[in-house]
Amino acid sequence: MLSGVLRAGLIQLRVLDYRTVDFYDNILGLQRVGETEDGRIMFKGYDEFHHHSVVLRKAESPGLDYVAYKVDSPETLERLKDETEKWGFPCTEIPANSDNPGYGKRYSFVIPTGHTIQMFAEVEMAERHPQIENPYPWEEAPKGMRAQLFDHLLLYGPNVHETERYFCEVWKMYAPEVVKLSDGKHFGAWLSCGMKAHDLAIIEYDRPNSLHHVAFRLEDWGDIGHAADLLAFHDLRLDVGPTRHSITRGKTIYFWEPSGNRIETFAGGYEAYPDHPQRYWDMDHVPRGIFYYERYLVDSFMNVVT
Amino acid sequence: MLSGVLRAGLIQLRVLDYRTVDFYDNILGLQRVGETEDGRIMFKGYDEFHHHSVVLRKAESPGLDYVAYKVDSPETLERLKDETEKWGFPCTEIPANSDNPGYGKRYSFVIPTGHTIQMFAEVEMAERHPQIENPYPWEEAPKGMRAQLFDHLLLYGPNVHETERYFCEVWKMYAPEVVKLSDGKHFGAWLSCGMKAHDLAIIEYDRPNSLHHVAFRLEDWGDIGHAADLLAFHDLRLDVGPTRHSITRGKTIYFWEPSGNRIETFAGGYEAYPDHPQRYWDMDHVPRGIFYYERYLVDSFMNVVT
Amino acid sequence: MLSGVLRAGLIQLRVLDYRTVDFYDNILGLQRVGETEDGRIMFKGYDEFHHHSVVLRKAESPGLDYVAYKVDSPETLERLKDETEKWGFPCTEIPANSDNPGYGKRYSFVIPTGHTIQMFAEVEMAERHPQIENPYPWEEAPKGMRAQLFDHLLLYGPNVHETERYFCEVWKMYAPEVVKLSDGKHFGAWLSCGMKAHDLAIIEYDRPNSLHHVAFRLEDWGDIGHAADLLAFHDLRLDVGPTRHSITRGKTIYFWEPSGNRIETFAGGYEAYPDHPQRYWDMDHVPRGIFYYERYLVDSFMNVVT
Amino acid sequence: MLSGVLRAGLIQLRVLDYRTVDFYDNILGLQRVGETEDGRIMFKGYDEFHHHSVVLRKAESPGLDYVAYKVDSPETLERLKDETEKWGFPCTEIPANSDNPGYGKRYSFVIPTGHTIQMFAEVEMAERHPQIENPYPWEEAPKGMRAQLFDHLLLYGPNVHETERYFCEVWKMYAPEVVKLSDGKHFGAWLSCGMKAHDLAIIEYDRPNSLHHVAFRLEDWGDIGHAADLLAFHDLRLDVGPTRHSITRGKTIYFWEPSGNRIETFAGGYEAYPDHPQRYWDMDHVPRGIFYYERYLVDSFMNVVT
Repeated sequence: MLSGVLRAGLIQLRVLDYRTVDFYDNILGLQRVGETEDGRIMFKGYDEFHHHSVVLRKAESPGLDYVAYKVDSPETLERLKDETEKWGFPCTEIPANSDNPGYGKRYSFVIPTGHTIQMFAEVEMAERHPQIENPYPWEEAPKGMRAQLFDHLLLYGPNVHETERYFCEVWKMYAPEVVKLSDGKHFGAWLSCGMKAHDLAIIEYDRPNSLHHVAFRLEDWGDIGHAADLLAFHDLRLDVGPTRHSITRGKTIYFWEPSGNRIETFAGGYEAYPDHPQRYWDMDHVPRGIFYYERYLVDSFMNVVT
Repeated sequence: MLSGVLRAGLIQLRVLDYRTVDFYDNILGLQRVGETEDGRIMFKGYDEFHHHSVVLRKAESPGLDYVAYKVDSPETLERLKDETEKWGFPCTEIPANSDNPGYGKRYSFVIPTGHTIQMFAEVEMAERHPQIENPYPWEEAPKGMRAQLFDHLLLYGPNVHETERYFCEVWKMYAPEVVKLSDGKHFGAWLSCGMKAHDLAIIEYDRPNSLHHVAFRLEDWGDIGHAADLLAFHDLRLDVGPTRHSITRGKTIYFWEPSGNRIETFAGGYEAYPDHPQRYWDMDHVPRGIFYYERYLVDSFMNVVT
Repeated sequence: MLSGVLRAGLIQLRVLDYRTVDFYDNILGLQRVGETEDGRIMFKGYDEFHHHSVVLRKAESPGLDYVAYKVDSPETLERLKDETEKWGFPCTEIPANSDNPGYGKRYSFVIPTGHTIQMFAEVEMAERHPQIENPYPWEEAPKGMRAQLFDHLLLYGPNVHETERYFCEVWKMYAPEVVKLSDGKHFGAWLSCGMKAHDLAIIEYDRPNSLHHVAFRLEDWGDIGHAADLLAFHDLRLDVGPTRHSITRGKTIYFWEPSGNRIETFAGGYEAYPDHPQRYWDMDHVPRGIFYYERYLVDSFMNVVT
Repeated sequence: MLSGVLRAGLIQLRVLDYRTVDFYDNILGLQRVGETEDGRIMFKGYDEFHHHSVVLRKAESPGLDYVAYKVDSPETLERLKDETEKWGFPCTEIPANSDNPGYGKRYSFVIPTGHTIQMFAEVEMAERHPQIENPYPWEEAPKGMRAQLFDHLLLYGPNVHETERYFCEVWKMYAPEVVKLSDGKHFGAWLSCGMKAHDLAIIEYDRPNSLHHVAFRLEDWGDIGHAADLLAFHDLRLDVGPTRHSITRGKTIYFWEPSGNRIETFAGGYEAYPDHPQRYWDMDHVPRGIFYYERYLVDSFMNVVT
């Protein structure tokens, strides 16, 4: 565990309407934290300590504004900012408590896939944080799909190989699994800064800055089934699942929230360690890698992004 | 993630008879790796890369010989050896490939609870390791309770507070949860070197060098139920469960293998991070902390150790 | 399937306070149907067609007022009334729509265990009944423990053997499992009128008219775990479980609602058929019969009734 | 419960090769009972009392030879034979212990969908039957997918409406769910003789005597996931699932065994009663009826039969 980067801690998504806000609240089951001054809506999972972790911004089209990773100290933040700029990605500072209440200073930069990545070292503890003194597992009974936390996201964009290099060399992430092209370059990479099989995944794609999905963690296969019952009951459109990935080994459902952002609810997966051998895939086996049971990639999975 | 210690990687247990060996093989479902020259039997979980992780030694009484943790490099190993000796715990070197085939050099020392702890940096990859190239989740279909891996253990012994200090200051572990006495000392500590809620737990107890339980990870609550069916079918004696801990939040069963060592099969639990606030318990709430549903500690849980 | 008796369809319980009403509503997750003119509160499970199936009556002490079984036609109702009186149990008529809105005529009588049993042939369909035309599995998303329906109950009282004879000879129930005393009499009987392992269970006990528990069906082991999480979160007192019965093979939790009535939430169990051999138990094996994993009967399970 | 027909008790399938026999044995997890004199292979589920319930016959093409239902007495058998012949379906007698060891006399006839249906009243108890005296839930630990029993089958063929009429009027089955055409005729019917949502299902199809699938019951959603892991591990071809039906509400996987017969492993579903209103579907909603989560019918599901 060498990385000073801890986890994906904050994401801002574009959504179209109120029905979508209701989805994150009552169907996915996040806790509604409040609104920012400019009307964006803040959420968090019941198992998260951060002031908030998901921000919804109303817009004309769905998609990702940015994702921000927490690092372990202000020193690490400044060091990573310097090394990122030296690597060639200019960083913009977002002052503390400016657009995101409770958040300390963030640095923002664009990676070669076209996505905006941020990092921060400080964030206030949420009011409804997990209990600390003689804690109950829940502060309040989870609702809806019982999403525990915002876990990771999959970015589609060009220049995967270079992007992976940045995260591995500067952020000291490692890639428990990759998809290799015949020329040795990586078509896709699952990147970890801890013991999760991925804190960030990237797959090669023509259109820059595309969002494939945002993933929320559920407790287990039983909750995966419950989530599927709920999405069907609410007439949400399923993409794939319930199924299991070979890559990461997580159990999963992909579906679209009402604005068209693809959501993953997943559980399980192996414990990753940096000293374990890297698992790798060639293109022929990717369908089984992604969907272990089905072994084919539905068109939508490859081509629908936001 | 600052620690250079990765995980509990090897444990040697004393067992009485062949029936117990059969338990680890066919009921718990470990893979039998082979025998050492002096007749000890080596096992590993299907999801482990190490040459082997569990060694059974036939003896007059059950219990723990030692547990060994893997560190991230030979440099870390030597550094930790020096710092451990400086801390006051003399280290003995166990040469590579001496008593444990496939294992590099280990250092062994005794902590104030009376237990023998070891550390090592190198181990050969097991023959039946998890697949790496276009991997299937399993190399072969798991059997019995489908134990994935040796996960952690709980030591009972005196001097918990001092022992915790060693692990936190030298090994750079952190304690996601502790039980506090009224004098501020810790009666028990759950210690992590990564993102698991515990890689090692220690609880204050008069008799030094006592083993409370060894824990193996299962996939989820469904497998917990399946494990309970199997232990009942094989007339093994249940201690407690299926239930959930408040501490670590894992779902769990405690029972005894035929030689009398207590085994935990568990699944789940929260993701721990060193920047999260430490959860703490006072003695009055410990029963709920240990067994969330039952809220009492059966006598056996407090007093039966090996 | 020879019996004209279909299922346990209505139960009236005594409860102490409003907190208990809230339990059945928001924790157990029944649908609140409304109140009778005299202030009793009506509930039903989301998967039930009956107008209501559970009635709570405020009283000084908890317990069972009566349980009513649905038969397949008015003709069967009159025939069973005649045969019951001929058997020696006088029947009282309760006019349609008198104390229970939506219910047709009921006949009430007392069995040798001291309990009041009723039977009826007609009941109006609930407003929020399961959907019929292009149905969704749910009419609304279930809440709390997601109890599907009132399933069965266990009566404690004297004269089990004679009581069983009545149900088998007059109602044409059969007993998939029994506990046999050394004199050949039955200490306990699990009685079925269909394919469930029990629609009614009776166990020998000194005090007549005692209620051991009322059982509600959950979907599966995943929901059993979820129910345990909820009862612990709400500080309800657990009796036993999560565990599995050998008898009926159901997975189960026993706990007390706030008024002290013991509730079972269970799932699974084998499909019973009248042509299958009767399973039987001697007294020595009853602890394993009741609790397959634990193999002992906690005192409370044997002695606490309402 | 008026029907004298108890359940689907015996099925004979055509298979191509030994690999398929191994599937039923070690992957599906049936118990191998033995071979008939002419080399057919007999299996049963661990939770079945019948001498055997599945017979595999080696042939040039896969498919169904016949399915046989158990009735509650020799008197019922003779009565149903007479009524079936009066209805217009000639019956052939298959003498006891002729082609199926342990089986009493069977009557065989062809229904308008083109399938061969049989009925019998007597069958010997299997050697490895579920335990009766102080029973354990299992006689031996289940293997593979842990199929409990042969549960039902879905027949594709012409004349569904007339076929349904026979089963309802002569066998006194009832149809908990049907698919209605605009002319009021039934395109499909799910037929029950007890409390299962279906003991037999039939769907309109041009080619007579076609087999859509044979279904085996698993314990719950956890075992559904385990079955999916096993079928993927063994490179079996998935059709659809893990998912849930709206019709019957069962959780399910469809896949093909090595000879090409479609197998369903399913769990759950509601308790059916003859006094409950019949659920009905129009053609537009059938996709959601069949696959609640996906809401579309893959081509294979509609067109691949054996």
